[in-house]
Amino acid sequence: MSERFFVEQPITGSTAELVDAEAQHLTKVMRAAVGDEVVLFDGSGAEFTAKVARISKAAVTLEILERREINLEPRAELTLAVALPKGERQKWLVEKLTELGAARLVPLITERGVAQPVDAAIARLRRAVIEASKQCGRNRLMEIAPPREASEYFADDSLSMKLIAEPGGETLGSLPSEVSTIACAIGPEGGFTPAELKVALENQWRPVSLGRSILRIETAAIAVAAWSGLS
Amino acid sequence: MSERFFVEQPITGSTAELVDAEAQHLTKVMRAAVGDEVVLFDGSGAEFTAKVARISKAAVTLEILERREINLEPRAELTLAVALPKGERQKWLVEKLTELGAARLVPLITERGVAQPVDAAIARLRRAVIEASKQCGRNRLMEIAPPREASEYFADDSLSMKLIAEPGGETLGSLPSEVSTIACAIGPEGGFTPAELKVALENQWRPVSLGRSILRIETAAIAVAAWSGLS
Repeated sequence: MSERFFVEQPITGSTAELVDAEAQHLTKVMRAAVGDEVVLFDGSGAEFTAKVARISKAAVTLEILERREINLEPRAELTLAVALPKGERQKWLVEKLTELGAARLVPLITERGVAQPVDAAIARLRRAVIEASKQCGRNRLMEIAPPREASEYFADDSLSMKLIAEPGGETLGSLPSEVSTIACAIGPEGGFTPAELKVALENQWRPVSLGRSILRIETAAIAVAAWSGLS
Repeated sequence: MSERFFVEQPITGSTAELVDAEAQHLTKVMRAAVGDEVVLFDGSGAEFTAKVARISKAAVTLEILERREINLEPRAELTLAVALPKGERQKWLVEKLTELGAARLVPLITERGVAQPVDAAIARLRRAVIEASKQCGRNRLMEIAPPREASEYFADDSLSMKLIAEPGGETLGSLPSEVSTIACAIGPEGGFTPAELKVALENQWRPVSLGRSILRIETAAIAVAAWSGLS
């Protein structure tokens, strides 16, 4: 079976259990039977070959046959802090960032932002990460971090290589080979306010330009992920 | 008025005319009146300040007040030859490539491709280019070229810096500063066939890898456009 299935609990023992949508998909859509082999991942970095051992109404129990460490993560660990766009564009953003190997998405609460990162939205984004990971072969889940207020996030002194997308900033150029972690902030459609920008600059966030067009929020974030992964 | 309006005919004289959807949008949605000033572009590279001179049922006539050359094109001219994805993903692909400054999209007809670039689809994509250009400020339209058969396109000897996205290819690295035109081919979900790939290699297309995950078609194309525009 070529599809990959996601197990919510870390797989540590000799069995694993699929529940809810994943179990339904395996038995109803893929019509798996006891004895069939499938590929599982638990988001921790490894993938597993497993054999269907028991099918019940509520769950599918699988016997783990093999564990493989398959690491598809890019060289630099990228955190994107983004004033989320609305509707479908949110889901696209997450799908593309997952494919392109971003490590973490931090929903930014900004003065001019339009989408509120409420709990239901965050849960939806987490589900989109799993769906994209199943498809692209990535075994580590992109983290959807708890939302942060922009000025508070800009003052976080645990971050290194801090970039803020701003028209008129420096061009990105090529990524220095010694860089291992990057944080990049993308503002809402109307941009960060002067007050937000002031906090960023006071905390050594470096303004970078993403070309001369006006990019939509999700385009800017995807472009940074592609640049970080490919250059 | 902050919106930009697209004029199908190149603007060369002292007046211009908006018709159909653009005219409707100006008068019905934006409620423009005679004497109002608006920004026009005709896809040739310039934008114009114009004043509404006459509103009729079929068209809006505008008087050109100023012509400005505003060039937002990236340094390297990028052609993406892509086995189009299906449905909404096609529209997204075009929107993002337009924002990121790709010069040209060539729909590739491949053996394993799923979406047929029929005339209605091509017309829809051209409309998506205009919509994205209005929003991102680009004054030159990304060209939606006529569809080409992959093997025939690979043998086209008018192209330079020819890249073909293939798992296991070289990494992209940074874009050499002397490169002024790039062509990059992106295959369908199942990849190019060995026969198609053979023609590409015989014609000096260089296989490049876009990271270790399996990227969807539109993600691969967007990533190349971001890389070409930002590195």
